[in-house]
Amino acid sequence: MENFVYCSPTKYIFGAGTENSVGAEAAALGFKNVLVVYGGGSAVRSGLLDRVKDSLTGAGIRFAELGGIAPNPVDGPVRKGIEMCRAGGIDGVIAVGGGSVIDTAKAIALGVPYSGDFWDFYAGKAKPEAALPVGVVLTIPAAGSEGSGNSVITLESGTKNIKISLRTDYVLRPKFAILNPELTYTLPPYQTASGIADMMAHIMERYFTTTQDVEITDRVSEGILKAIIEEAPKVMAKPDDYQARANIMWSGTLAHNGICGTGRKEDWASHAIEHEISALYNVTHGAGLAVIFPAWMTFMAQYSPGKIAQFARRVFDVAEHDDTAAAAEGIACLKAFFGSIGLPVTFAELGVPDPDIDTMVRRLHENKGEVIGGYRPLRAADTTEIYQLAL
Amino acid sequence: MENFVYCSPTKYIFGAGTENSVGAEAAALGFKNVLVVYGGGSAVRSGLLDRVKDSLTGAGIRFAELGGIAPNPVDGPVRKGIEMCRAGGIDGVIAVGGGSVIDTAKAIALGVPYSGDFWDFYAGKAKPEAALPVGVVLTIPAAGSEGSGNSVITLESGTKNIKISLRTDYVLRPKFAILNPELTYTLPPYQTASGIADMMAHIMERYFTTTQDVEITDRVSEGILKAIIEEAPKVMAKPDDYQARANIMWSGTLAHNGICGTGRKEDWASHAIEHEISALYNVTHGAGLAVIFPAWMTFMAQYSPGKIAQFARRVFDVAEHDDTAAAAEGIACLKAFFGSIGLPVTFAELGVPDPDIDTMVRRLHENKGEVIGGYRPLRAADTTEIYQLAL
Repeated sequence: MENFVYCSPTKYIFGAGTENSVGAEAAALGFKNVLVVYGGGSAVRSGLLDRVKDSLTGAGIRFAELGGIAPNPVDGPVRKGIEMCRAGGIDGVIAVGGGSVIDTAKAIALGVPYSGDFWDFYAGKAKPEAALPVGVVLTIPAAGSEGSGNSVITLESGTKNIKISLRTDYVLRPKFAILNPELTYTLPPYQTASGIADMMAHIMERYFTTTQDVEITDRVSEGILKAIIEEAPKVMAKPDDYQARANIMWSGTLAHNGICGTGRKEDWASHAIEHEISALYNVTHGAGLAVIFPAWMTFMAQYSPGKIAQFARRVFDVAEHDDTAAAAEGIACLKAFFGSIGLPVTFAELGVPDPDIDTMVRRLHENKGEVIGGYRPLRAADTTEIYQLAL
Repeated sequence: MENFVYCSPTKYIFGAGTENSVGAEAAALGFKNVLVVYGGGSAVRSGLLDRVKDSLTGAGIRFAELGGIAPNPVDGPVRKGIEMCRAGGIDGVIAVGGGSVIDTAKAIALGVPYSGDFWDFYAGKAKPEAALPVGVVLTIPAAGSEGSGNSVITLESGTKNIKISLRTDYVLRPKFAILNPELTYTLPPYQTASGIADMMAHIMERYFTTTQDVEITDRVSEGILKAIIEEAPKVMAKPDDYQARANIMWSGTLAHNGICGTGRKEDWASHAIEHEISALYNVTHGAGLAVIFPAWMTFMAQYSPGKIAQFARRVFDVAEHDDTAAAAEGIACLKAFFGSIGLPVTFAELGVPDPDIDTMVRRLHENKGEVIGGYRPLRAADTTEIYQLAL
């Protein structure tokens, strides 16, 4: 186990009807005038946005609105939000939505007190030190952004999209996150399943590490994975199964609030590899991960099957004693699980039968460096092989 | 799963040498003048206290000292500490020790801004709303007080000791907790083992619940228990095994920072039952729990074997299909595990061959109410049976 600092101060308000406490939570933070950021029409149509606005109004809090945030969020709305905050004397940002909305809200919150362009933080040219406080009403359990200090934004720059994940220790962790499982009943099955793959990937990016002697974080990670695998078929079969939705929603937060990464090196190569797919083909991030993660594991099993075999035995109860064989069986179980909830596990199933691997590899290493990942450092020849294993 | 609010804002600084950051952490909180609370001689003899004082001095922080806090901490030193804080203009309390020291520091922190007697909070006559900030340098992984909002103090009142656990959501959670596994190398084997039983009990008090559909918290709880059971023999065999000590130390924090209790009713009957043993016979709390928890489980298996069977299967890999038989086998495994690390599992082994059960039962229900616990509510006849099952 390595030395670490861990602080997850987000206040979680979890359960049925909790969105009606958003006004009280915002008032407790001293907010007087907030920017409400949201996505497409579902938060409007479902009446959620009205309930949020009513709760804010009831707590004496004024608000401006920035809607229309799309999946794989881009820089344009961030710049617009920053301008709105500055012009309107906004003192807090409230995200009503999933990862794209929350990540946009975080980027806005970070940009407001900064004199330069917000992209400087994502480009590594500036260090995040101050941001407006962010509150969340979560509608999609997937990205884990409600409990993380991270934000992923794509820069639309001429013909070239650059998707970057900004990671901060504390600055961007939401002050509060309201999690009502009922709000996830209406998620389409594909989006529900993609969210499940995303949260599993958040755990696995931390689980596959070269750090030894991390039994406690291994066991916690395996436990969350097992819970997700057990609850996932229930939400797929019955979208309004409150208890299964609740288990999945809380799992998604625990998967990415950092607890699974304490004391060890993390990997994140699969996320980087997937980001090039969703940046180029605009596929759902979690579906892309369902394609890439088994390919990444297949590649890794050639060199370091041990931890993948442990995953197979502890998460999928594989009985095989030989590590290489156990790893292969575990990867097959993971693919079968993804398939069982309607996710693709190949590029063809993802709807990209002929991916431009050369371009993705080139952009990947241009954006993320010559070498990526930690479980085994990956160069262009390796990432090319991983994309090919996903064909 | 039930609705819940969860917030664990403590900043954990974990690893070798981290005690030297106590000055920087205290300065970051704006402390200028602190009370350093510690226990017996080991923190002095080991040089830890000097390192803490050097770190504080180096950060420009003045300090007063209150040493000599004994296990099963009592009200006297709390009152003394409150007076010292008030007289000295103290702005923060730093605990250097284990649960007894931390709980004393918390009680002092709570008493300082309160006009009445600090015991009012423990007696339920006042609601904790403000306290001086508390920082921790942990030396004994057991009580989990470094990450909890709780404090257990015994009131020495005439001939009658009253041991009460005060639980708060946030007010008493430490601002920071410094966890260096090296500081636990010198713990005597019995204290190490007792700490292991204590942290396991903290998980099991939350795990054995009547709340249904809590797969995610069940799996996390089982994972931490499995990690403890795997690492415990290593620390017993080699007290300076850094990696095993690190796994045990972090497990002890996760066991009691509340994450295992999210979304469900908790029990805590075994702790209440044990508190009467340690109040009357001054035994080590964790050792008392090793005696009481299997007895409590044996009692419960008569009525509700299902969850105990799940515990047996998932934590001890019991293969038995019948719930009652699996529960019995799981309880036997738990007793064997406690025995294997040198812990008692009967009153006789605890050194109390002829316990005064009538007195303990009377005091238990006088102090905690006619009915205690949640998995199955317990009256005097039930708690009598549990004490008897531990003979």
